[in-house]
Amino acid sequence: MPELRQDPTTREWVIIAVERAKRPSEFQGQGATTRRTCLLSQRQSCPFCEGNEAMTPPEIAAYRKAGTAPNTPGWWIRTVPNRFAALRVEGQRDRREIGDFFRMMDGVGAHEVIIETPEHCDTIGIISDSQAEEIVMMYLDRFLALKKDPRFETITCFRNRGSLAGASLLHPHSQLIATPMVPALLRQRLEMAFRYYDDHGACVYCRLIERELAEKTRVVLDNDDFVVFEPFASRVPFETWIVPKMHMSAFEDIPRDLGKALGRTLNAALRILFEKLNDPDYNFVIRTEPLREDHSVYFHWFLQILPRLTTMAGFEMGSGMFINPMPPEKAAEFLRQTGESPQN
Amino acid sequence: MPELRQDPTTREWVIIAVERAKRPSEFQGQGATTRRTCLLSQRQSCPFCEGNEAMTPPEIAAYRKAGTAPNTPGWWIRTVPNRFAALRVEGQRDRREIGDFFRMMDGVGAHEVIIETPEHCDTIGIISDSQAEEIVMMYLDRFLALKKDPRFETITCFRNRGSLAGASLLHPHSQLIATPMVPALLRQRLEMAFRYYDDHGACVYCRLIERELAEKTRVVLDNDDFVVFEPFASRVPFETWIVPKMHMSAFEDIPRDLGKALGRTLNAALRILFEKLNDPDYNFVIRTEPLREDHSVYFHWFLQILPRLTTMAGFEMGSGMFINPMPPEKAAEFLRQTGESPQN
Repeated sequence: MPELRQDPTTREWVIIAVERAKRPSEFQGQGATTRRTCLLSQRQSCPFCEGNEAMTPPEIAAYRKAGTAPNTPGWWIRTVPNRFAALRVEGQRDRREIGDFFRMMDGVGAHEVIIETPEHCDTIGIISDSQAEEIVMMYLDRFLALKKDPRFETITCFRNRGSLAGASLLHPHSQLIATPMVPALLRQRLEMAFRYYDDHGACVYCRLIERELAEKTRVVLDNDDFVVFEPFASRVPFETWIVPKMHMSAFEDIPRDLGKALGRTLNAALRILFEKLNDPDYNFVIRTEPLREDHSVYFHWFLQILPRLTTMAGFEMGSGMFINPMPPEKAAEFLRQTGESPQN
Repeated sequence: MPELRQDPTTREWVIIAVERAKRPSEFQGQGATTRRTCLLSQRQSCPFCEGNEAMTPPEIAAYRKAGTAPNTPGWWIRTVPNRFAALRVEGQRDRREIGDFFRMMDGVGAHEVIIETPEHCDTIGIISDSQAEEIVMMYLDRFLALKKDPRFETITCFRNRGSLAGASLLHPHSQLIATPMVPALLRQRLEMAFRYYDDHGACVYCRLIERELAEKTRVVLDNDDFVVFEPFASRVPFETWIVPKMHMSAFEDIPRDLGKALGRTLNAALRILFEKLNDPDYNFVIRTEPLREDHSVYFHWFLQILPRLTTMAGFEMGSGMFINPMPPEKAAEFLRQTGESPQN
């Protein structure tokens, strides 16, 4: 019998198609064939490779060796404006209505690219822990810098890996988009968390990790600071959440030590997906509260990884419900197994 | 300057990347090369082709020539259970909680496939108007039949065209999934419509088509019964809505004449997309109220077409906001142009 499961944090229902379930090893990325053969020619034309700094807009921030000049080699992490920015940094936050009906604003905001390493063929999951720590430090620095701009209300920090996930460049990078309003989806997530708090006097995410740690069946990794698990109502095969044990509603408020621990945990979680699923395409996103609002009692930031191993079809687009052919308990069991992965 | 636009029916924001806009003719499906060369060998193994009726589960309903037996040739539209059904028709609607926290239900429901024609290489848009009318008549029949089952609360009727839209078979077909609960996304849409009604004493969709007909810039087709337009906050290039002029909250309540007019209008709208965009992959979905609820004052059913010419990436997944490189006014202008399309 298939199961309908409700995400306790959003109240969205998911169909877990237990009977249509494939074996976990049937979900495989295309990494081995397409990505591990990295050609020097690609690097020469890659705007994110060391030595090609002139191919990007001037850098906003960089971690680089003492004495090296901006926009020259010598960096290990580099943040630049997105050349094809979705939003523009110039202008005011101005709302207007057309014909007393349609609402619009000028597209002010920030759209930055964080180049995660000079190495073209690296990726989080196979980089060093110290490099992963530095990536999260750069996220934090950029959140704190962008928060100072009063026009911005929300920052979405995300990563696209592979063409199925919308990445146009192989060179490892994350992106930050600051928007001058709060997206409707985040409003709904906050409202659901508030309703839970109202009903139960507790943070739904704190309760969630308590339950996950008690049941254990969906947990992939558990360390002092984070729980990594496949959520009960996983929308896609191998959806993975990294939730901090410390209750805190805003990502940018975390202590730097915890940020470094996030870098190491993210590197470990993505290493498992890389090895077990052959470098799958995926998106990840940091879900955090709006910059100008304080939901500290009932909201809880976390990082969500969504592998792109299935295609969203009309039912998903139409109903918002997902059909997931991989029960999260099976997914977690597969990811916990040590030893050789099937394709190696 | 990019624009942020809000969908008046959902309050979701969309980034219309005016400056990143491509020319409309740059958005092209892969139809001409991949689909129009239909091989007989495909038909022999296609479970939806005439003569292969034994390859599907026994039919639920069919429009067929007098005197022909079920599950034999002679039909022009045929409805069968989905062989890989996401939900199962057997069982009760039973909700339970795990550990006083996680909510779930057995996956009872219906998952039907409407085979739209015996012709393997046809598709809505290039079929006859009378065949398109019959397809909508079958939707109506199936809605009315499934509504009698008290376990079902919502029906999602959708179509996947092409592999990017999640279709695994080329042979033209639509699908219906009846679920034993109301999806969160539909709840939100109803709530937004209710809020508009509360504020303005009018149906937001009625107001919307008034505005679209007054502004004209986004309208593609306008006939006695329907308005076809590119919505103000189009989430993807060439998103197209077909909205009935008659206010009615439930699709299944429409008179049969209006259903036939929907078939002809849908055929005309998809013919334009087929010709102008070279048979693009797309999903469409009928958005209608839950089966057991009456939102007749403030809700309004409609049909939404979502071409799959772009990839959802981490920002879309994370924020729920879409970045659309095709302003709907330009899209509508392009679709309204008569004469040869660029690829023909």
